[in-house]
Amino acid sequence: MSDQCLFCGIVAGDIPSVRVAEDDTTYAFMDIHPASDGHLLVVPKRHSRDLVDIQAEDLTAVTLTAQRIAKTVVGEFGADGVNLLNCCGADAWQTVFHFHLHVVPRYVDKAKDRLVLPWQPGIPGDMNAIAARGERLRRALE
Amino acid sequence: MSDQCLFCGIVAGDIPSVRVAEDDTTYAFMDIHPASDGHLLVVPKRHSRDLVDIQAEDLTAVTLTAQRIAKTVVGEFGADGVNLLNCCGADAWQTVFHFHLHVVPRYVDKAKDRLVLPWQPGIPGDMNAIAARGERLRRALE
Repeated sequence: MSDQCLFCGIVAGDIPSVRVAEDDTTYAFMDIHPASDGHLLVVPKRHSRDLVDIQAEDLTAVTLTAQRIAKTVVGEFGADGVNLLNCCGADAWQTVFHFHLHVVPRYVDKAKDRLVLPWQPGIPGDMNAIAARGERLRRALE
Repeated sequence: MSDQCLFCGIVAGDIPSVRVAEDDTTYAFMDIHPASDGHLLVVPKRHSRDLVDIQAEDLTAVTLTAQRIAKTVVGEFGADGVNLLNCCGADAWQTVFHFHLHVVPRYVDKAKDRLVLPWQPGIPGDMNAIAARGERLRRALE
Protein backbone atom coordinates (compact mmCIF):
# COMPACT_ATOMS: atom_id res chain seq x y z
CA MET A 1 0.00 0.00 0.00
CA SER A 2 1.23 3.42 -0.90
CA ASP A 3 -0.48 6.55 0.41
CA GLN A 4 0.55 8.40 -2.73
CA CYS A 5 -0.61 5.72 -5.18
CA LEU A 6 -3.48 6.66 -7.50
CA PHE A 7 -4.60 3.07 -7.99
CA CYS A 8 -4.44 2.26 -4.27
CA GLY A 9 -6.77 5.26 -3.86
CA ILE A 10 -9.12 3.87 -6.51
CA VAL A 11 -9.12 0.39 -4.95
CA ALA A 12 -9.85 1.91 -1.52
CA GLY A 13 -12.70 3.99 -2.97
CA ASP A 14 -11.04 7.27 -2.00
CA ILE A 15 -10.71 8.21 -5.66
CA PRO A 16 -13.77 7.64 -7.87
CA SER A 17 -13.69 5.11 -10.70
CA VAL A 18 -16.11 3.31 -12.99
CA ARG A 19 -15.92 -0.16 -11.49
CA VAL A 20 -16.31 -3.13 -13.83
CA ALA A 21 -15.48 -6.13 -11.64
CA GLU A 22 -14.05 -6.83 -8.22
CA ASP A 23 -13.06 -9.85 -6.18
CA ASP A 24 -10.87 -10.43 -3.12
CA THR A 25 -7.64 -9.93 -5.04
CA THR A 26 -8.39 -7.81 -8.11
CA TYR A 27 -10.20 -4.64 -9.15
CA ALA A 28 -11.16 -3.71 -12.73
CA PHE A 29 -12.21 -0.24 -13.83
CA MET A 30 -12.61 1.82 -16.96
CA ASP A 31 -9.63 3.77 -18.31
CA ILE A 32 -10.63 7.44 -18.49
CA HIS A 33 -8.11 8.06 -21.29
CA PRO A 34 -9.33 5.24 -23.52
CA ALA A 35 -7.36 4.03 -26.50
CA SER A 36 -10.52 2.34 -27.74
CA ASP A 37 -14.19 2.02 -26.89
CA GLY A 38 -14.35 0.03 -23.65
CA HIS A 39 -10.64 0.21 -22.68
CA LEU A 40 -10.20 -0.83 -19.04
CA LEU A 41 -7.56 -1.72 -16.48
CA VAL A 42 -7.21 -4.66 -14.11
CA VAL A 43 -5.10 -4.17 -10.96
CA PRO A 44 -4.23 -6.21 -7.89
CA LYS A 45 -5.77 -4.75 -4.73
CA ARG A 46 -2.48 -5.26 -2.93
CA HIS A 47 0.05 -2.66 -4.04
CA SER A 48 2.88 -3.79 -6.26
CA ARG A 49 4.96 -1.51 -8.41
CA ASP A 50 5.22 -3.48 -11.64
CA LEU A 51 5.73 -6.85 -13.34
CA VAL A 52 9.03 -7.38 -11.56
CA ASP A 53 7.54 -6.59 -8.17
CA ILE A 54 4.14 -8.32 -8.30
CA GLN A 55 3.70 -11.63 -6.46
CA ALA A 56 2.77 -14.68 -8.53
CA GLU A 57 -0.59 -15.08 -6.80
CA ASP A 58 -1.65 -11.53 -7.66
CA LEU A 59 -0.32 -11.74 -11.22
CA THR A 60 -2.29 -14.93 -11.79
CA ALA A 61 -5.48 -13.43 -10.39
CA VAL A 62 -5.15 -10.24 -12.46
CA THR A 63 -4.54 -12.26 -15.64
CA LEU A 64 -7.56 -14.50 -15.11
CA THR A 65 -9.78 -11.50 -14.35
CA ALA A 66 -8.52 -9.85 -17.54
CA GLN A 67 -9.31 -12.98 -19.55
CA ARG A 68 -12.82 -13.16 -18.12
CA ILE A 69 -13.45 -9.52 -19.00
CA ALA A 70 -11.84 -9.85 -22.45
CA LYS A 71 -14.27 -12.65 -23.31
CA THR A 72 -17.20 -10.55 -22.13
CA VAL A 73 -16.05 -7.48 -24.07
CA VAL A 74 -16.13 -9.36 -27.34
CA GLY A 75 -19.76 -10.33 -26.79
CA GLU A 76 -21.05 -7.18 -25.11
CA PHE A 77 -19.35 -4.52 -27.20
CA GLY A 78 -19.06 -6.44 -30.45
CA ALA A 79 -15.30 -5.98 -30.40
CA ASP A 80 -13.37 -7.52 -33.29
CA GLY A 81 -10.45 -8.49 -31.05
CA VAL A 82 -8.68 -7.50 -27.86
CA ASN A 83 -5.18 -6.68 -26.69
CA LEU A 84 -3.67 -7.20 -23.28
CA LEU A 85 -0.74 -4.92 -22.51
CA ASN A 86 1.47 -4.50 -19.48
CA CYS A 87 4.03 -1.74 -19.27
CA CYS A 88 6.86 -2.32 -16.80
CA GLY A 89 9.02 0.73 -16.21
CA ALA A 90 8.84 4.35 -17.36
CA ASP A 91 10.89 3.47 -20.45
CA ALA A 92 8.23 0.88 -21.34
CA TRP A 93 5.44 3.52 -21.11
CA GLN A 94 4.40 2.81 -17.51
CA THR A 95 2.97 6.00 -16.00
CA VAL A 96 1.23 4.78 -12.83
CA PHE A 97 3.48 2.67 -10.64
CA HIS A 98 0.91 0.19 -9.40
CA PHE A 99 0.86 -2.94 -11.57
CA HIS A 100 -1.94 -2.82 -14.15
CA LEU A 101 -2.96 -4.83 -17.17
CA HIS A 102 -4.63 -2.94 -20.01
CA VAL A 103 -7.59 -4.72 -21.60
CA VAL A 104 -8.08 -2.96 -24.93
CA PRO A 105 -11.06 -4.00 -27.06
CA ARG A 106 -10.26 -3.63 -30.74
CA TYR A 107 -12.49 -2.60 -33.64
CA VAL A 108 -12.23 -2.51 -37.39
CA ASP A 109 -14.25 0.72 -37.08
CA LYS A 110 -11.51 3.28 -36.46
CA ALA A 111 -14.00 5.72 -34.90
CA LYS A 112 -13.89 3.36 -31.90
CA ASP A 113 -10.20 2.50 -31.97
CA ARG A 114 -7.20 4.85 -32.14
CA LEU A 115 -4.43 2.27 -31.76
CA VAL A 116 -1.53 2.05 -34.16
CA LEU A 117 0.92 -0.80 -34.52
CA PRO A 118 3.66 -0.50 -31.87
CA TRP A 119 6.13 -2.04 -34.29
CA GLN A 120 6.19 -3.09 -37.93
CA PRO A 121 5.91 -6.88 -38.01
CA GLY A 122 7.75 -9.21 -40.31
CA ILE A 123 11.12 -7.45 -40.40
CA PRO A 124 13.70 -10.21 -39.93
CA GLY A 125 16.34 -9.76 -37.25
CA ASP A 126 20.02 -10.77 -37.30
CA MET A 127 19.85 -14.52 -36.64
CA ASN A 128 23.32 -14.66 -35.06
CA ALA A 129 22.45 -11.93 -32.60
CA ILE A 130 19.08 -13.55 -31.85
CA ALA A 131 20.69 -16.94 -31.23
CA ALA A 132 23.27 -15.36 -28.90
CA ARG A 133 20.57 -13.53 -26.95
CA GLY A 134 18.54 -16.70 -26.63
CA GLU A 135 21.53 -18.74 -25.48
CA ARG A 136 22.44 -16.18 -22.84
CA LEU A 137 18.90 -16.02 -21.53
CA ARG A 138 18.53 -19.81 -21.54
CA ARG A 139 21.66 -20.20 -19.41
CA ALA A 140 20.57 -17.48 -16.99
CA LEU A 141 17.23 -19.25 -16.55
CA GLU A 142 18.69 -22.70 -15.93
CA MET B 1 -2.90 -29.64 -31.53
CA SER B 2 -3.09 -28.44 -35.07
CA ASP B 3 -1.04 -30.03 -37.81
CA GLN B 4 -0.94 -26.72 -39.64
CA CYS B 5 0.10 -24.64 -36.64
CA LEU B 6 3.54 -23.01 -36.78
CA PHE B 7 3.91 -22.82 -33.00
CA CYS B 8 2.78 -26.43 -32.49
CA GLY B 9 5.55 -27.32 -34.93
CA ILE B 10 8.05 -25.29 -32.91
CA VAL B 11 6.94 -26.87 -29.62
CA ALA B 12 7.23 -30.34 -31.17
CA GLY B 13 10.72 -29.53 -32.47
CA ASP B 14 9.68 -30.07 -36.10
CA ILE B 15 10.38 -26.42 -36.84
CA PRO B 16 13.62 -24.95 -35.48
CA SER B 17 13.59 -22.22 -32.85
CA VAL B 18 15.99 -20.55 -30.45
CA ARG B 19 14.68 -22.02 -27.20
CA VAL B 20 14.90 -19.88 -24.08
CA ALA B 21 12.97 -21.87 -21.47
CA GLU B 22 10.71 -24.88 -21.30
CA ASP B 23 8.64 -26.69 -18.71
CA ASP B 24 5.78 -29.19 -18.80
CA THR B 25 3.25 -26.58 -19.89
CA THR B 26 5.09 -23.73 -21.59
CA TYR B 27 7.74 -23.08 -24.22
CA ALA B 28 9.63 -19.81 -24.68
CA PHE B 29 11.67 -18.91 -27.78
CA MET B 30 13.17 -15.91 -29.49
CA ASP B 31 11.07 -13.93 -31.95
CA ILE B 32 12.90 -13.93 -35.30
CA HIS B 33 11.25 -10.62 -36.26
CA PRO B 34 12.24 -8.77 -33.10
CA ALA B 35 10.75 -5.42 -32.16
CA SER B 36 13.64 -4.95 -29.75
CA ASP B 37 16.87 -6.61 -28.70
CA GLY B 38 15.86 -9.83 -26.92
CA HIS B 39 12.18 -9.94 -27.98
CA LEU B 40 10.73 -13.40 -27.28
CA LEU B 41 7.48 -15.32 -27.16
CA VAL B 42 5.97 -17.59 -24.52
CA VAL B 43 3.39 -20.15 -25.67
CA PRO B 44 1.44 -22.99 -24.06
CA LYS B 45 2.55 -26.38 -25.35
CA ARG B 46 -1.08 -27.42 -25.66
CA HIS B 47 -2.65 -25.74 -28.68
CA SER B 48 -5.12 -22.95 -28.06
CA ARG B 49 -6.11 -20.36 -30.60
CA ASP B 50 -6.10 -17.18 -28.53
CA LEU B 51 -6.97 -15.45 -25.24
CA VAL B 52 -10.62 -16.44 -25.55
CA ASP B 53 -9.76 -20.07 -26.22
CA ILE B 54 -6.90 -20.76 -23.79
CA GLN B 55 -7.61 -22.67 -20.58
CA ALA B 56 -6.97 -20.92 -17.27
CA GLU B 57 -4.25 -23.37 -16.27
CA ASP B 58 -2.26 -22.73 -19.45
CA LEU B 59 -2.80 -18.96 -19.30
CA THR B 60 -1.51 -18.89 -15.73
CA ALA B 61 1.56 -20.94 -16.59
CA VAL B 62 2.40 -18.81 -19.64
CA THR B 63 2.07 -15.61 -17.60
CA LEU B 64 4.31 -16.83 -14.80
CA THR B 65 6.92 -18.02 -17.30
CA ALA B 66 6.78 -14.62 -18.97
CA GLN B 67 7.28 -12.87 -15.62
CA ARG B 68 10.25 -15.06 -14.77
CA ILE B 69 11.86 -14.30 -18.12
CA ALA B 70 11.02 -10.58 -17.93
CA LYS B 71 12.87 -10.34 -14.62
CA THR B 72 15.87 -12.11 -16.12
CA VAL B 73 15.89 -9.93 -19.22
CA VAL B 74 16.25 -6.77 -17.16
CA GLY B 75 19.36 -8.14 -15.47
CA GLU B 76 20.93 -10.03 -18.36
CA PHE B 77 20.36 -7.55 -21.19
CA GLY B 78 20.37 -4.34 -19.18
CA ALA B 79 16.87 -3.55 -20.44
CA ASP B 80 15.31 -0.32 -19.16
CA GLY B 81 11.84 -1.86 -18.99
CA VAL B 82 9.70 -4.56 -20.55
CA ASN B 83 6.30 -4.90 -22.19
CA LEU B 84 4.01 -7.90 -22.23
CA LEU B 85 1.58 -7.96 -25.14
CA ASN B 86 -1.08 -10.39 -26.20
CA CYS B 87 -2.94 -9.98 -29.48
CA CYS B 88 -6.29 -11.76 -29.68
CA GLY B 89 -7.78 -11.80 -33.16
CA ALA B 90 -6.55 -10.68 -36.55
CA ASP B 91 -8.01 -7.22 -35.95
CA ALA B 92 -5.88 -6.98 -32.79
CA TRP B 93 -2.70 -7.79 -34.78
CA GLN B 94 -2.64 -11.55 -34.10
CA THR B 95 -0.88 -13.30 -36.99
CA VAL B 96 -0.20 -16.80 -35.63
CA PHE B 97 -3.28 -18.46 -34.21
CA HIS B 98 -1.68 -20.29 -31.31
CA PHE B 99 -1.86 -18.23 -28.11
CA HIS B 100 1.38 -16.33 -27.46
CA LEU B 101 2.55 -13.66 -25.08
CA HIS B 102 5.18 -11.24 -26.38
CA VAL B 103 7.93 -10.38 -23.90
CA VAL B 104 9.52 -7.22 -25.29
CA PRO B 105 12.58 -5.82 -23.50
CA ARG B 106 12.68 -2.04 -23.79
CA TYR B 107 15.66 0.28 -24.14
CA VAL B 108 16.25 4.00 -24.04
CA ASP B 109 18.83 3.29 -26.76
CA LYS B 110 16.67 3.35 -29.90
CA ALA B 111 19.25 1.31 -31.81
CA LYS B 112 17.97 -1.64 -29.74
CA ASP B 113 14.28 -0.76 -29.70
CA ARG B 114 12.00 0.12 -32.61
CA LEU B 115 8.71 0.34 -30.73
CA VAL B 116 6.41 3.33 -30.97
CA LEU B 117 3.51 4.19 -28.70
CA PRO B 118 0.42 2.23 -29.77
CA TRP B 119 -1.76 5.13 -28.65
CA GLN B 120 -1.28 8.67 -27.40
CA PRO B 121 -1.84 8.60 -23.65
CA GLY B 122 -3.61 11.25 -21.61
CA ILE B 123 -6.39 12.11 -24.04
CA PRO B 124 -9.57 12.20 -21.95
CA GLY B 125 -12.56 10.19 -23.13
CA ASP B 126 -16.26 11.07 -22.95
CA MET B 127 -17.09 10.30 -19.31
CA ASN B 128 -20.77 9.56 -20.01
CA ALA B 129 -19.85 7.01 -22.66
CA ILE B 130 -17.18 5.49 -20.41
CA ALA B 131 -19.60 5.20 -17.49
CA ALA B 132 -22.20 3.55 -19.72
CA ARG B 133 -19.66 1.06 -21.06
CA GLY B 134 -18.51 0.25 -17.53
CA GLU B 135 -22.05 -0.23 -16.27
CA ARG B 136 -22.92 -2.57 -19.14
CA LEU B 137 -19.80 -4.64 -18.62
CA ARG B 138 -20.30 -4.77 -14.85
CA ARG B 139 -23.82 -6.15 -15.29
CA ALA B 140 -22.70 -8.71 -17.84
CA LEU B 141 -20.02 -9.92 -15.43
CA GLU B 142 -22.30 -10.25 -12.41
